[in-house]
Amino acid sequence: MTQPIPTGLQLRSLIKSTGELELSLVSIPTPAPGPDEVLIRVDAAPLNPSDLGLLFGAADIAAAVQRGTKAQPLITAGVPEAAMQSMAGRFDQSMPVGNEGAGLVIGAGTSAAAQALLGKTVAVLGGAMYSQFRCVHVEQCLPLPPGASAADGASSFVNPMTALAMIETMRAEGHTALVHTAAASNLGVMLNRICLKDGIALVNIVRSQAQSDALRALGAAHICDSSSPTFIQDLTRALAATGATLAFDAIGGGKLAGQILSGMEVVLTAKSKEYSRYGSGVHKQVYIYGGLGSGPIHIERNLGMAWGVGGWLVFPYLQKLDPSVTRRLKERVADELKTTFESHYAGELSLAEALQLENISLYGKRTTGQKYLINPHKG
Amino acid sequence: MTQPIPTGLQLRSLIKSTGELELSLVSIPTPAPGPDEVLIRVDAAPLNPSDLGLLFGAADIAAAVQRGTKAQPLITAGVPEAAMQSMAGRFDQSMPVGNEGAGLVIGAGTSAAAQALLGKTVAVLGGAMYSQFRCVHVEQCLPLPPGASAADGASSFVNPMTALAMIETMRAEGHTALVHTAAASNLGVMLNRICLKDGIALVNIVRSQAQSDALRALGAAHICDSSSPTFIQDLTRALAATGATLAFDAIGGGKLAGQILSGMEVVLTAKSKEYSRYGSGVHKQVYIYGGLGSGPIHIERNLGMAWGVGGWLVFPYLQKLDPSVTRRLKERVADELKTTFESHYAGELSLAEALQLENISLYGKRTTGQKYLINPHKG
Repeated sequence: MTQPIPTGLQLRSLIKSTGELELSLVSIPTPAPGPDEVLIRVDAAPLNPSDLGLLFGAADIAAAVQRGTKAQPLITAGVPEAAMQSMAGRFDQSMPVGNEGAGLVIGAGTSAAAQALLGKTVAVLGGAMYSQFRCVHVEQCLPLPPGASAADGASSFVNPMTALAMIETMRAEGHTALVHTAAASNLGVMLNRICLKDGIALVNIVRSQAQSDALRALGAAHICDSSSPTFIQDLTRALAATGATLAFDAIGGGKLAGQILSGMEVVLTAKSKEYSRYGSGVHKQVYIYGGLGSGPIHIERNLGMAWGVGGWLVFPYLQKLDPSVTRRLKERVADELKTTFESHYAGELSLAEALQLENISLYGKRTTGQKYLINPHKG
Repeated sequence: MTQPIPTGLQLRSLIKSTGELELSLVSIPTPAPGPDEVLIRVDAAPLNPSDLGLLFGAADIAAAVQRGTKAQPLITAGVPEAAMQSMAGRFDQSMPVGNEGAGLVIGAGTSAAAQALLGKTVAVLGGAMYSQFRCVHVEQCLPLPPGASAADGASSFVNPMTALAMIETMRAEGHTALVHTAAASNLGVMLNRICLKDGIALVNIVRSQAQSDALRALGAAHICDSSSPTFIQDLTRALAATGATLAFDAIGGGKLAGQILSGMEVVLTAKSKEYSRYGSGVHKQVYIYGGLGSGPIHIERNLGMAWGVGGWLVFPYLQKLDPSVTRRLKERVADELKTTFESHYAGELSLAEALQLENISLYGKRTTGQKYLINPHKG
């Protein structure tokens, strides 16, 4: 075992009840692993949209102010009055950030499972991954295949497991094809690869011609550009071709969820032989799993009666599954880490660099295809 | 067996592909019952909102024109251009109307089950009940208790089974209390009686002070008037008092469904001990079962991620249940026909009277508490 390091840096996000967001680095004692735990030197942790939500909260990050020093930066930003109520649950709690990451196991508890991981590079779903050192339960680790670096495995959980859980949901709820919005995202690219590999028809909804071209180059068969004047017709044609009755939507706000359901209903009623004033009896579902559009959801009532819209989160969903299913999904991620689940990053930042305004303006944009990685040990 | 009557009148609704609705009476041969069928003299059939949808379609009934004679009336009305696509499935089909009703069994097939019903007054869920005679399968009949008239039993299915199926849904999906909108309706009054009897907390949402007073007189404990300036606070207080996480909404259009979910989320997050940026992990659900508000559904995104909104229809729901459950519900309806499931009617119309403009203007209003009954044999 490598000599334990007494302290390490950790990134923290604090929203004060006075309405100020504060991002900073703190030095925390390096924990000693319990019997079933391992100590990890975190070498790579992605800045996912789901992390940015916790990192920035409802603060107006575009008007953030840089303070502190280069090594000990401090970012402050105001939380708009109207959003304060939604932040009340986290007031005055200094919160660590970072859902997932990967690194080298440099310490292990006494159990055989913990000892077996010593010296291995593992991916971790543990929270607080924007830290130099993290102590986690062995169950939270996924050993990476030989030759895979921490950067290769940093995004092994959130996007891969979300994409695989979408397919599980599709099968469990009796659908045979899928619609995905924001389909040119890192997650969308993975879902497209899974569907191509597994022979599942996927309707990819993107928001620009450039994204459409990028997905087409990756072999996607059904692509609909919501910025095109023929979007509704294109969508209806793709829904008819695939028979998709389930959609996963990263956007949420606006008319898109309703347009997808309405398109499905048009296809279903055109196929049905008998008139029913309640519309098609086939259930159509949109699950909203992200908040790229934060405005209200607007659903026209031209859907019949067999429809649903709702929130969907991968980890509560996985917790309800049989553990053998989750295990199978994790094994697939490890097996296909450098193919199906390969991620691309626009750049790598140290913890201190992640708290520089010019970098925040890059990764904070949530631009499709511009994901950044934090390397807490970057010099 | 009473001597079979060679023909009987039946009310028909026809929407022509040229955009005209036509309501008329036709004379049809009285069918002879098959082995498991019974022939019913229909004596009472309610004009439910669900019937009006099929009866009028998307026609502009306020501008309808009266033609024909008193005994053979003909109503015509135009279908607005914008609504024509939604009617395409029923173009040029002369459709019988009337989901439910009750009457005397005047003929029966050879099976024991059919013979056992001869001479009994039964409630029927059969469609085409705005007919003088109907031949249906014995399974579609519910024998009424001794002393109950056809008028007493005319509404034994749609509203009673809907109210009971709401309770079944609540239990099956793990909720312990309910919200109901349009709560002063015939259905709402039944649901209120069931909940009082069974000790289930019910939040009644009404649209006027008068409806609020009426429900309070019936013993309802939690009543929120959506026309009141304190509606949101009243609703939140009632949701906190009851712990309701499920709502059945007859309205659909507008902001109400979102307001209910948002109120539930406020109550749940206030109770939760740990902050999650995904909001409460407790699932909140609104099922929309009616279309009193036909505009778009507008949902603000202040609900966390554990929520759903969707369509709900009683009969597809019942078809998925174990038949023993449906049987238990039907027996309860028969047992409590003159108490829990008692209906009030504003008046009784013959088939010809139902096709008089002055009567259409009464029952077509869908005014809460103003339900009419068709008696196909009224002289």
